[in-house]
Amino acid sequence: MTKDQRFTQAAAELGYSFDGEIKIGGNYVPLVRDGQVIYLSGQIPRVGDVVVVQGRAGDTVSLPQAQLAAKVCVMRALALLQRALGSLEQVRSVLRITVYVQCTADFTQQSEVADGASALLFSILGDAGAHTRTSVGVQQLPKNATVEVDLIAAVRDGA
Amino acid sequence: MTKDQRFTQAAAELGYSFDGEIKIGGNYVPLVRDGQVIYLSGQIPRVGDVVVVQGRAGDTVSLPQAQLAAKVCVMRALALLQRALGSLEQVRSVLRITVYVQCTADFTQQSEVADGASALLFSILGDAGAHTRTSVGVQQLPKNATVEVDLIAAVRDGA
Amino acid sequence: MTKDQRFTQAAAELGYSFDGEIKIGGNYVPLVRDGQVIYLSGQIPRVGDVVVVQGRAGDTVSLPQAQLAAKVCVMRALALLQRALGSLEQVRSVLRITVYVQCTADFTQQSEVADGASALLFSILGDAGAHTRTSVGVQQLPKNATVEVDLIAAVRDGA
Repeated sequence: MTKDQRFTQAAAELGYSFDGEIKIGGNYVPLVRDGQVIYLSGQIPRVGDVVVVQGRAGDTVSLPQAQLAAKVCVMRALALLQRALGSLEQVRSVLRITVYVQCTADFTQQSEVADGASALLFSILGDAGAHTRTSVGVQQLPKNATVEVDLIAAVRDGA
Repeated sequence: MTKDQRFTQAAAELGYSFDGEIKIGGNYVPLVRDGQVIYLSGQIPRVGDVVVVQGRAGDTVSLPQAQLAAKVCVMRALALLQRALGSLEQVRSVLRITVYVQCTADFTQQSEVADGASALLFSILGDAGAHTRTSVGVQQLPKNATVEVDLIAAVRDGA
Repeated sequence: MTKDQRFTQAAAELGYSFDGEIKIGGNYVPLVRDGQVIYLSGQIPRVGDVVVVQGRAGDTVSLPQAQLAAKVCVMRALALLQRALGSLEQVRSVLRITVYVQCTADFTQQSEVADGASALLFSILGDAGAHTRTSVGVQQLPKNATVEVDLIAAVRDGA
């Protein structure tokens, strides 16, 4: 199966479509490319007009729900890369993701939330999905999103 | 109007001068250049010795005040780039800004705060100011600043 | 004294060994290299199986304890770089560190905490340790760590 096929399969398993417009919240761009490096803006778990996981981990949001939120953020990031590059096969390496988790004062499973993002990157991109990661627990996120993920990737020469 | 003239005009409109020493808070440097990429340290809205917007968005700090804070952070970043490069015309692309907002538990307008930073980057740098962005709400910031912004930029070949 | 000798001396002064496995918390990698740039995953102050500084700065954790936490994070990062490159002499420049501090709502000394990290980078790496820095106060961190530090470095040509 190609990486693009695995992406489509993962979207089907999540039950969400990432085919429409990827809305972003403000006066900036979803990605900037500099040579072979692509920076992606922070992604919240928005599908179409709806932020599908909102609220605070450790309070109204369970660990599995927060992991789902992290996965949706990663799917949006991959959808943006796929559109910019034509195919996810052009991603050479995911250099860095930062995973921000809206959480209570005593919620300490930010790494476990981020594991949702990491597992999905590996399952879709294979070795190219190996990445460095920082996960932190924050006070709030735009639109009361439970998770926000940003990403830096390197693309293949010639891509 | 050149980008440097637009910078000077924006400073006049804000009513602040960025001509003096750009103070930073600790044992590090304001920027590091690696090839054509420049990393800038996190900027708080300090002008001279005064942090001009302090406190918590959603509590004592209004959205317009927080947006002003974001603008002052960006002006400091641009002042540092201008000094390092001789002119803002040498900035090829703003690759990434991260906007940290000190806020209450239920303040969800981090993107709107960051729009202050984004609008200013566009108005001064034009197309070179198109950037990726991550905005998050945090517990506190150095010196009780309302906003902190860090930035990665690419400079023109030959600059 | 070489940089590697200074690293060993700093470990001895802290009273911790960084010779064993550097454990990381999840499904990702400790570092990714892209050309001459190395991204490191966020490091918490873990030595072996123990997170040696846990809790909230401004509450149960004093400023000196939080600074110690920042130093242990940096030592882990340097240990990872040393293993990947063979020697810390191969580090050309530390481009960026981000220092996340778990803190109370009114703790505003994030820069002072981060000074622990910055001073150690300078003392071990010399000029190559000059870095840009962002320090923020966050709600929580993985495993109740007081500090988390991530890092981007450039390595010498030929390294």
